Amino acid sequence: MHVFEAIEQRRSIKHFDPDHEMPEDEIRRLREACLLSPTAFNIQNWRFVAVRDPAIRRGIREAAWDQPQVTEASLLVVLCLDLNSWDRDPARYWRHAPPEVAAQLVPEIRAFYRGDPQLQRDEGMRSCGIAAQTLMLAAKALGYDTCAMDGFDFGRVGELINLPEDHEIALMIAVGKAVRGAHARAGQLPPEEVWFRDRFPSGY
Amino acid sequence: MHVFEAIEQRRSIKHFDPDHEMPEDEIRRLREACLLSPTAFNIQNWRFVAVRDPAIRRGIREAAWDQPQVTEASLLVVLCLDLNSWDRDPARYWRHAPPEVAAQLVPEIRAFYRGDPQLQRDEGMRSCGIAAQTLMLAAKALGYDTCAMDGFDFGRVGELINLPEDHEIALMIAVGKAVRGAHARAGQLPPEEVWFRDRFPSGY
Repeated sequence: MHVFEAIEQRRSIKHFDPDHEMPEDEIRRLREACLLSPTAFNIQNWRFVAVRDPAIRRGIREAAWDQPQVTEASLLVVLCLDLNSWDRDPARYWRHAPPEVAAQLVPEIRAFYRGDPQLQRDEGMRSCGIAAQTLMLAAKALGYDTCAMDGFDFGRVGELINLPEDHEIALMIAVGKAVRGAHARAGQLPPEEVWFRDRFPSGY
Repeated sequence: MHVFEAIEQRRSIKHFDPDHEMPEDEIRRLREACLLSPTAFNIQNWRFVAVRDPAIRRGIREAAWDQPQVTEASLLVVLCLDLNSWDRDPARYWRHAPPEVAAQLVPEIRAFYRGDPQLQRDEGMRSCGIAAQTLMLAAKALGYDTCAMDGFDFGRVGELINLPEDHEIALMIAVGKAVRGAHARAGQLPPEEVWFRDRFPSGY
C-alpha cells in the first residue's frame, strides 16, 4: 500500500475480529518497522510491550473503561519510554558511525539531557508518537486497522506489564481486523487554523 | 512509494540542495497528510509553522547550532502544540459525528484534561510525534528526505515564529532534496532489548 493511501485510509477502529490471530511473521514485520523509527541522537528511548496473554489483556481492558478493542485486537502494543536511555552507555547508539562523528555526538547526548527531567520525558513522548505512527501505517499496509489509546489507568497498566520505575507509558495501539468501519471524520479543523506560513499570524 | 519502503528508506539527512524550491502543490499534499494524523479525542492539538522566509530561516539556524539543513531545506516545518486545544470549544471536533457519539465524547474531553498540565503537554508531544512521522514518510514518498530536529534554542525559535504563550514547540522537520546520503545506521539496539512479549522481563 502506498504511503498516501495508508495515511488517508488510517482511521481509529474500535471493533475487531476477536478470533483473528496475527501470524508471527507479521508481528516481526511490524516490530522491524517500529525499530526503524527515528529518535533524537539515536537514543532509541522507546520500549514496546506486545501483549497477547488473555489475562493481561482482560486486566488492561478493566483499566481502560472496558473498551472492547483491548481484548478483541490481534495485537496490543503498549509504547513506553525509558527516561534514562540517554545515560545508558550512549556510545553504543553510535558504535557503527565514523569515529569522528561518534566522538562529536556521544558527549553531546549526556550534556543535552542531564538534569532536565521534563526534556527526558518530552523526548520519550515524541519518540513514542513517531513510532506509533510507524506502527499504525505499517499495520494498515498489512491489512490491519488500529486504535491509538491513552484513555486508561496508566498506573494500573504499568503494574500489569511490570513497567520499570524510570519508565513511563506513552500510549497503547490496538491492531486488528476491523469488523465495523469508522464513521465519517468527526470534525477536522480547516487548514488555515492549524497550518501557518512563516509564523503564527497576529490575532491568532 | 510503498509504506514499508518509506519506513526503511527514511534516514536523517543534513545536506540538502539549497536551490531547490518545493512546488506549492507538494506543500499542499504534505499539509493534507499531516492534518490526517490522529489525535486523542480528535482535539487536533498540533500546529504547523512552515517557514520559508529566508530571514527567519537564518535566525532559526543561528538558534540551532548553525546546522546547515535549517536554511538548505526546501521546507522547514516547526511542529507546535496548543496546550489548551481541549478547552477551545471541543464540540467542534465532533460536529460531524452521530449526535449520540458526540453527546458522550465531548464532555469527556474537558473532564480528561482539566487541571493536569503534564497530561496536556504529554498529549501535545505525542500528537506532534505522530504528525512528524506522517510528514517524514509523506515527504519520502514525494522524493524528499527529512531531518527531525530538537537540538535548538526553543525559546529563541518561539520568538521568531511568534509562538503563543500557551503553546509549546515540539520539534522541527527539515524537508529537502538530499545532496549527500546518510551513513550506515549508527547502532540499532537488538529487538530483544526494546520489544517484549506481554510484560517487561524480570531482570530487565
